[in-house]
Amino acid sequence: MSSIVHSFQWLCLFFLFTLICVSSLNVPRFENFHRRKHHQHQTISSSQFSQNLETFYYMQRLDHFNYRLDSYTTFPQRYIINFKHWGEAKSNAPIFAFFGAEEPMPEDPYVGLLEDNAPKLNALVVYIEHRYYGKSTPFGSFEESMKNATTRGYFNSAQAIADYADVLIHIKKTLSAQHSPIIVFGGSYGGMLASWFRLKYPHIALGALASSAPILYFDGIAPQHGYYYVVTKDFKDTSESCYNTIRESWNVIDRVAKEPNGLSILSKRFKTCKKLSTSSNLKDYLVLIYIGVAQYNDPYENTLKVVCDAIDGAANKTDVLGQIFEGLLAFDLEKLPCYEMEGSEEPSEKPSETYIGWEWQKCSEMLMPIGIDKEDSLFQPNPFNMTDFIDECKKRYGVVPQPHWVTTYYGGPDLKLNLKRFASNIIFSNGLMDPYSSGGVLNSISNSIIALTTKNGSHCLDLRPNDPSDPHWLTTQRKKEVKIIKGWIDKYHADLHKN
Amino acid sequence: MSSIVHSFQWLCLFFLFTLICVSSLNVPRFENFHRRKHHQHQTISSSQFSQNLETFYYMQRLDHFNYRLDSYTTFPQRYIINFKHWGEAKSNAPIFAFFGAEEPMPEDPYVGLLEDNAPKLNALVVYIEHRYYGKSTPFGSFEESMKNATTRGYFNSAQAIADYADVLIHIKKTLSAQHSPIIVFGGSYGGMLASWFRLKYPHIALGALASSAPILYFDGIAPQHGYYYVVTKDFKDTSESCYNTIRESWNVIDRVAKEPNGLSILSKRFKTCKKLSTSSNLKDYLVLIYIGVAQYNDPYENTLKVVCDAIDGAANKTDVLGQIFEGLLAFDLEKLPCYEMEGSEEPSEKPSETYIGWEWQKCSEMLMPIGIDKEDSLFQPNPFNMTDFIDECKKRYGVVPQPHWVTTYYGGPDLKLNLKRFASNIIFSNGLMDPYSSGGVLNSISNSIIALTTKNGSHCLDLRPNDPSDPHWLTTQRKKEVKIIKGWIDKYHADLHKN
Repeated sequence: MSSIVHSFQWLCLFFLFTLICVSSLNVPRFENFHRRKHHQHQTISSSQFSQNLETFYYMQRLDHFNYRLDSYTTFPQRYIINFKHWGEAKSNAPIFAFFGAEEPMPEDPYVGLLEDNAPKLNALVVYIEHRYYGKSTPFGSFEESMKNATTRGYFNSAQAIADYADVLIHIKKTLSAQHSPIIVFGGSYGGMLASWFRLKYPHIALGALASSAPILYFDGIAPQHGYYYVVTKDFKDTSESCYNTIRESWNVIDRVAKEPNGLSILSKRFKTCKKLSTSSNLKDYLVLIYIGVAQYNDPYENTLKVVCDAIDGAANKTDVLGQIFEGLLAFDLEKLPCYEMEGSEEPSEKPSETYIGWEWQKCSEMLMPIGIDKEDSLFQPNPFNMTDFIDECKKRYGVVPQPHWVTTYYGGPDLKLNLKRFASNIIFSNGLMDPYSSGGVLNSISNSIIALTTKNGSHCLDLRPNDPSDPHWLTTQRKKEVKIIKGWIDKYHADLHKN
Repeated sequence: MSSIVHSFQWLCLFFLFTLICVSSLNVPRFENFHRRKHHQHQTISSSQFSQNLETFYYMQRLDHFNYRLDSYTTFPQRYIINFKHWGEAKSNAPIFAFFGAEEPMPEDPYVGLLEDNAPKLNALVVYIEHRYYGKSTPFGSFEESMKNATTRGYFNSAQAIADYADVLIHIKKTLSAQHSPIIVFGGSYGGMLASWFRLKYPHIALGALASSAPILYFDGIAPQHGYYYVVTKDFKDTSESCYNTIRESWNVIDRVAKEPNGLSILSKRFKTCKKLSTSSNLKDYLVLIYIGVAQYNDPYENTLKVVCDAIDGAANKTDVLGQIFEGLLAFDLEKLPCYEMEGSEEPSEKPSETYIGWEWQKCSEMLMPIGIDKEDSLFQPNPFNMTDFIDECKKRYGVVPQPHWVTTYYGGPDLKLNLKRFASNIIFSNGLMDPYSSGGVLNSISNSIIALTTKNGSHCLDLRPNDPSDPHWLTTQRKKEVKIIKGWIDKYHADLHKN
């Protein structure tokens, strides 16, 4: 599967596949779906850039909220610093901290928004790996750390942001940078962590930028169909006929599948590597492509339009299945000889840390009920079933998900009223084409809880590096973000001088 | 020891004795030192009042921050509600929640400030017991719960306030009171919990009143001698000669102790029940009385003046030891036949839950370095020694204290600058005669982080019930508190109607 990829940026691959897994836990492992890095990123993260980076390990406490003997165990947590642009401690120059999310951190992390703006704000840039991933595993290796209910227990968001608190305090101490303001950044799950960090540790982070963070997709706050509603809208807005064709295709697939030799026919028409055992595998595969296209569409390649153009363009030449296959071919830039759709039964690759880790987080606390309970969807109905979900988690992990904990700990119902009253200095940025924007904060709540949305933006687009071909709206969004952050820092420095 | 008592109010006995234990872990167990309730309280907490109370148990999660199998264990957490004055859910009437601290909750809890003001604000009054105490023990009994490093591990402040979050959300749900604003209250350690709760769970508590909460007595923010400095000042302000006599007495005791039969002489002169094995036991006993007198002095009995008057009044009749003994006699309203000062070696009573519980909390996270490192103290020098303290904790509990965790999780350094920037709706009330005020927030930080101090107030005095003999300054302090809280609630209701 690794060769079916789509442009995205590291640390913002996030949980495309998790969505699928929320509505059905038994889907193929598509975690390598979109592993190709954006061309710009490849250019910038050269060895030239790597020279500016220094890697450190902090001996992190396994359990911040317990005083059992085993909670005192420590593990090395990795963080990487780019010192190049820092204005140093004596001028109280700021620290930009990027929070790792559900992925191992690369050796040469590069988040455009931070690196592009660190020079003008004289900022230190810090990347911190999320516990359990990559080189920050508490029990020797990822496999060991995830092997049973006891070792997995410490893997959750509250522990993760407490880690970030410890690491940031440690960095400030080491650099004697007590009065350097810290701005935290993150995208998607990492964006939720960044905004939650500002809520929970405002004494450590002066402000947060949470890109594409669906913090309202918990505990029934956002409607379950929001995600698929946006995907549907994206396709409909791109091409009504493309939308109609895809919408029709599911029934066509079902009908053909029921014919004698139907699965053979479908396998042949969709060039599957192995004969389909069920039409669901084909449908899941296609769903993943469509939602991936919607979530990660960008103004550079505009894959959404590419796919729809292919589907629409084939209208006069072939039938619905042929049109859909043309869409798949247009998506597959690598021109694979065949398509592997039977992944769930015989995985050809080891599941990634991201896949394993996020599956666990969903079954413990990160339970976002995403499903399709509406008729006008691009997709066939597939409502989220909490009972099935909980049963499956119990079967897998022996524990029951805690669907209310996220909203208890971080807030949720009446969030706007509450955030308005107590919170400050958070930017929630969203691209409205991103299906996850349906769980995001899309309107400013106060003059310091600011929503910045772009009509044509996708998942975490603002975090990517500046590019000469950036559309105006994207450049404007990033400029606004930096201006707001600079405002926080300036005000902080002014306050500091007053004291 | 239980008959040597002093007036105080339940849930605000707090950690008088802990101080002593911080500077020396091996002091006699004086935890029942001040067990007599204020006369007013006894009158009010009659069966008539009890009729308004209803007791409930919430099945609480053992560990909110872990997903090990054992963290899913639940235990019954007790809370008691006074429904009498509540304006009910449909009018979004407020909820006053009093946070239990390091003590079992009585069956008829009564905190004056809440009960006196609930009628005019139509407030529901909720008392929640702190985990591990009383009937809220996670492992069957207090003894079982404290028996080893594993069972004790879940006993900490972060878990405790997470409990309160869960209970309060549960109460709102049960009463369909989604939009009833919650104000949380607490005194001393409970006051710290209340203010921290507002910082960590502002989406649940609209505001907090933290009475006598020394949130700055951590991690070297407040100077270690602050506590004893205030005790010293209290005595000096009451009577310079009393202060001089006490100050002189330690050397006199030391000198006499070194004489042949010195300990017999001291035992006789101080009417000890058993012969003193060391003069330290006498000195510790006296220190506890002096700090208790300072911490809990009230305008009704003014024990500080009573003790000093006795000491000063005996000046012409006896020597220094005789004067000190007169002070002791004046303090001892019960007229004990003898004084038990050898408690540490042969405890005549089982140590209280408060004593055992707080000893543990100090050795894990609640490490307030309190000592006497100044020359001009009422007491002999006794600097806080972190190394000794840590060693003793290791020996006792097998674990190392985490002196930085409280400030990492709740904030600390630059607290004012930080609170100003992000926090709101907290009242820090302090009586400046209370030695713990040295670690309190004594100046308002913003127009909603308000410090209310009284020059002559003592520990948690504002929480006590109104009394006809209340001095004007105390009545004024309480009125201000209620006015501020009413302002928060009114603004909340106004905001609610706007939405």
